[in-house]
Amino acid sequence: MKTAILGASGYGGGELVRLVDGHPALDTIYLGAHSQAGRTLGEVHPHLWGGDRLLSPMTADLPGIEVAFLALPHGESAELGAALAERGVKVIDLGSDFRLDTPDRYQSAYGAPHPLPDELDRWAYGLPELFRESIMGADRVAAPGCYPTAALLALAPLTAAGIIETNHVVVNAMSGVSGAGRALRADLLFGAVDEGVRAYAVTTHRHRPEIEMAVSDFVGSRISVTFTPHLVPMQRGILATITAPAAGSVTGSSVRGALGEFADHNPFVELIDEPPQTRWVVGSNRALVNGYLDPATNTVIAMAAIDNLVKGAAGQAIQAANLMCGLDETAGLGAAGWMP
Amino acid sequence: MKTAILGASGYGGGELVRLVDGHPALDTIYLGAHSQAGRTLGEVHPHLWGGDRLLSPMTADLPGIEVAFLALPHGESAELGAALAERGVKVIDLGSDFRLDTPDRYQSAYGAPHPLPDELDRWAYGLPELFRESIMGADRVAAPGCYPTAALLALAPLTAAGIIETNHVVVNAMSGVSGAGRALRADLLFGAVDEGVRAYAVTTHRHRPEIEMAVSDFVGSRISVTFTPHLVPMQRGILATITAPAAGSVTGSSVRGALGEFADHNPFVELIDEPPQTRWVVGSNRALVNGYLDPATNTVIAMAAIDNLVKGAAGQAIQAANLMCGLDETAGLGAAGWMP
Amino acid sequence: MKTAILGASGYGGGELVRLVDGHPALDTIYLGAHSQAGRTLGEVHPHLWGGDRLLSPMTADLPGIEVAFLALPHGESAELGAALAERGVKVIDLGSDFRLDTPDRYQSAYGAPHPLPDELDRWAYGLPELFRESIMGADRVAAPGCYPTAALLALAPLTAAGIIETNHVVVNAMSGVSGAGRALRADLLFGAVDEGVRAYAVTTHRHRPEIEMAVSDFVGSRISVTFTPHLVPMQRGILATITAPAAGSVTGSSVRGALGEFADHNPFVELIDEPPQTRWVVGSNRALVNGYLDPATNTVIAMAAIDNLVKGAAGQAIQAANLMCGLDETAGLGAAGWMP
Amino acid sequence: MKTAILGASGYGGGELVRLVDGHPALDTIYLGAHSQAGRTLGEVHPHLWGGDRLLSPMTADLPGIEVAFLALPHGESAELGAALAERGVKVIDLGSDFRLDTPDRYQSAYGAPHPLPDELDRWAYGLPELFRESIMGADRVAAPGCYPTAALLALAPLTAAGIIETNHVVVNAMSGVSGAGRALRADLLFGAVDEGVRAYAVTTHRHRPEIEMAVSDFVGSRISVTFTPHLVPMQRGILATITAPAAGSVTGSSVRGALGEFADHNPFVELIDEPPQTRWVVGSNRALVNGYLDPATNTVIAMAAIDNLVKGAAGQAIQAANLMCGLDETAGLGAAGWMP
Repeated sequence: MKTAILGASGYGGGELVRLVDGHPALDTIYLGAHSQAGRTLGEVHPHLWGGDRLLSPMTADLPGIEVAFLALPHGESAELGAALAERGVKVIDLGSDFRLDTPDRYQSAYGAPHPLPDELDRWAYGLPELFRESIMGADRVAAPGCYPTAALLALAPLTAAGIIETNHVVVNAMSGVSGAGRALRADLLFGAVDEGVRAYAVTTHRHRPEIEMAVSDFVGSRISVTFTPHLVPMQRGILATITAPAAGSVTGSSVRGALGEFADHNPFVELIDEPPQTRWVVGSNRALVNGYLDPATNTVIAMAAIDNLVKGAAGQAIQAANLMCGLDETAGLGAAGWMP
Repeated sequence: MKTAILGASGYGGGELVRLVDGHPALDTIYLGAHSQAGRTLGEVHPHLWGGDRLLSPMTADLPGIEVAFLALPHGESAELGAALAERGVKVIDLGSDFRLDTPDRYQSAYGAPHPLPDELDRWAYGLPELFRESIMGADRVAAPGCYPTAALLALAPLTAAGIIETNHVVVNAMSGVSGAGRALRADLLFGAVDEGVRAYAVTTHRHRPEIEMAVSDFVGSRISVTFTPHLVPMQRGILATITAPAAGSVTGSSVRGALGEFADHNPFVELIDEPPQTRWVVGSNRALVNGYLDPATNTVIAMAAIDNLVKGAAGQAIQAANLMCGLDETAGLGAAGWMP
Repeated sequence: MKTAILGASGYGGGELVRLVDGHPALDTIYLGAHSQAGRTLGEVHPHLWGGDRLLSPMTADLPGIEVAFLALPHGESAELGAALAERGVKVIDLGSDFRLDTPDRYQSAYGAPHPLPDELDRWAYGLPELFRESIMGADRVAAPGCYPTAALLALAPLTAAGIIETNHVVVNAMSGVSGAGRALRADLLFGAVDEGVRAYAVTTHRHRPEIEMAVSDFVGSRISVTFTPHLVPMQRGILATITAPAAGSVTGSSVRGALGEFADHNPFVELIDEPPQTRWVVGSNRALVNGYLDPATNTVIAMAAIDNLVKGAAGQAIQAANLMCGLDETAGLGAAGWMP
Repeated sequence: MKTAILGASGYGGGELVRLVDGHPALDTIYLGAHSQAGRTLGEVHPHLWGGDRLLSPMTADLPGIEVAFLALPHGESAELGAALAERGVKVIDLGSDFRLDTPDRYQSAYGAPHPLPDELDRWAYGLPELFRESIMGADRVAAPGCYPTAALLALAPLTAAGIIETNHVVVNAMSGVSGAGRALRADLLFGAVDEGVRAYAVTTHRHRPEIEMAVSDFVGSRISVTFTPHLVPMQRGILATITAPAAGSVTGSSVRGALGEFADHNPFVELIDEPPQTRWVVGSNRALVNGYLDPATNTVIAMAAIDNLVKGAAGQAIQAANLMCGLDETAGLGAAGWMP
């Protein structure tokens, strides 16, 4: 299927090119970029093969294109994504423009009205593990944020199984630096990141309403979470550590049972015996989960580890595209990660 | 004052040598080591001046020594520390042998009876910010663990001020690798640590009962916490992120007010305006704290950042020694940290 | 073709599994290990798919196996490799046992006689870019060391083209830590590697005679080099920086011309316009090269960057296997690298 | 002595504040900055004590100031430094404006005429180990670049002792990222530096003429070097690896003998038994050196390791100031480095 990647010059765009190049059914024939248009792929992503491919201007006028991935900064997908979908292109937006489902929720999270409020309920939330059916029938999919992906893969099954009380859910997450994108910011210099750890966007990160929306939709009741993201000195990977009061007489086995059953139904989720490490998923679309009961406080502690650029971005978008196109959900996503 | 450092070859021992060498009143005249005895200081700590000083055998027979720091693995301080104190030496133990205050608590945490149960109540818990008075009168001090130091410097003042409910206190902490010491372990190889993050000792870390004991003693009521430590790819630094339900109508200002008042009474604690970064304290005895109220869930989120080897180990031990010896609390601890 | 990977538990072995799993013609049906035999692949390489595959004992008795990769410590390949080859298996040894071509050279480099001296001249040196023909006809191939691979890909074409004088060739190389393997060594702890750089094995590294042998064979005259390897704080990658007096009136263009012509004949070598970065090749079998003339000293400076575990180990072994088996040289090696 | 630090907001400026704060005779009473003027020290250097000190505008009108350190970008010291010196202030310029000794050499290195050509021969080159006498009598000192410092501390004594031939001197150096300063550059982002190594400024780095000038002046004959700097993923530290043909029948002992004799006369230079590691000098003003003879090629390989921000910048500037002011050369430079 003829595929466009719009926003090919960022980290997420680079991962899309890498993964779509290895996909058996998707064929990248258009690479779009804003300020980097006119340069070659190799100039912005020297690690990829086929570096002489040209980056073209951003446009919705892409005759013949059947699938389009958008990997753009917040606010730049709305018009373009809607226009592409209007022309019959299956669109997967990796940005945040269409993730929240109502104009109110969007306004509340972003402090401004959505530019195309009528469009919002036409976009499916693209986390296959929670909303596979709606993605399969969609031609517009908003791929989830990286933190929500990690958090939801542990939180949603535990909530759905009634394992946790939902009044004191705490999500602490630790991310590698690529999650912040490729922008030139002083706080992302090597000298500002290496050998240090910090929380950021405390109480204000926009992935919190996204987590709340998705888990609430999944289980059918309104759930709030406290969410604190942290930046750790590594390129890739997110670890979400979730803490919540156990619901009644839960055991460690029942925690792991709920996670394991969820994993059994999802090809990219795996329950393991140890605390998951981000190093074990870097480069692949896998999510590793585990959970514990702390008997001293009757608290559940669960973790999920993903690669923020793969399962948290490009890989997940391809997973959604596979479902939208009637392909095998795992098509093009079989490559192993790397270690060390 | 004539000082011995027993266990000089580890990371904590190295920091003790570095800091005591710059101390105006303490004079290191004995460096003790187990397997490294007979080697020079320079062979085990090539970064220190005076590398030709010899590491001597471990012993309690140290005539003339007035102050002894013990930086030994768990289980190796008990006999030696007690013997030194018996001879009138002021002893500061950086290990975990004397931190817990009762034989029961020790048995429960370590799964074995304490070798010298009668000794336990003779040792003061050496966190000056909480227990300054008792340290000033002590000749036996157990310096706190690194995680408890970070956690308590934010948790204790908020608890004492009645800012938080104590039924769902969650402590998530992120530590650099030096916290695990200098042992030869496969999981501490560069290839196993670099570019990854992981939780460990989930529900079982022995610093949890230590945190609970100290905060409970400080506020006078029994408090439990859920504690999850994480290893991040950096040498030094601990960030503790604490989440707890707000007690009633708390505001962000009242959170910061409680932390600020605590900081005002403690020379090494500083309330800052941003989320504290470990990079800002590395190398110094400072602790940076901050706190937030999340209005969406009426939850308090507070953070403390320390250098695990300085405020979390050697610096704090010297701070306690200063108090024990009637010196200025900050003596020898004035060196700034480093960045980058 | 039925394939065995013997020594699957190390870093090189893990990369072999990763790459052979994606190979269109090779099919891994035996994974051998020494001390890790009996464990699963997932226990030693949690990043790979198919983690339930079992590691089996090391043996030469592998009925049906057509191709065997050996990724073993020095000294452990000789008997096993010879035995496998004797049974008609095509053997690619990633270790150093068969790289040097004569008993004398081996004795001189390793300080001991070779255990199977008659075997040495039966093994082809597996650097396809220099010795493609002999590899195509071989059933025993010794894959080059990681440093020689990087050094030779820039040094050999410049020497062959008469661009450099060969009396003062200096090779300085910088390697990530995975080049030292997965052994439990104090000098490979995170605390000993992170945030530092050092030379090692100065004047004594065994890759020096290997470089000298290969470049001498390639150009047909005896050439000596000075070689200094350095360890830098990263997982993967080697950068070789080569300095040599220019031969007569060489220009920057002629330096790059010689490298470019070499690259034109080799699918995995690419001449680029900037100093090559290891980050651009990590994860792939590519080698990036570039060269300069320093007019102030009439000196040539050339560089090559590779991933030590791919082009410097597992990828190159597969490249050689492809040639040995009559497959396309690039089969199974098309995956792009990753960045960041 | 009343001291000003002009350019206090960069990395070098921060180290100056850290070290002068601990100096027994220098007292910082003026902190100057360009764009950061008006902010507090703590806002730009959160790791330092006394963060409420204000950054003031840059000016030469500093009544009462006796010593001024300038830590400014290239081109910004010339006017200011000359004006301060004219007013009788002892000036130590950490920048490159006054390092080269003649207008021609400056023009050749920087491609533009020096703004104050008559000023050049009034400035002493501030490497105490080579030019202690001239620094002692100077009131204008240009502190050396970081690479020249590392290179010269091994190269100069070997050259002076006649240990090496000087026709093929090769200096390869590896630097941490702080050497590039604190500027906002895409190639200094964490995502562009972490986990990779690269050469840069190949054949064109301006520290090359500086190395040549200084070693030539020291030994009294004109010497050229080939110099290739590399960027490695760490904050601090430079390792210079120098290769040169041995002069006649040199031995490893004579190499080390020349380095050791040089070290004996210089309090901050130390000959060690192993290849020096940058981790062993980070944070201190020490330089560690070692040297080898490679008998196979009759080549000398020597190394020096320094902290680029201390011995390569702020520490060295203070060392020079001590000499200029008649203080003990080591005053204020006694702090040990740190590890890990």
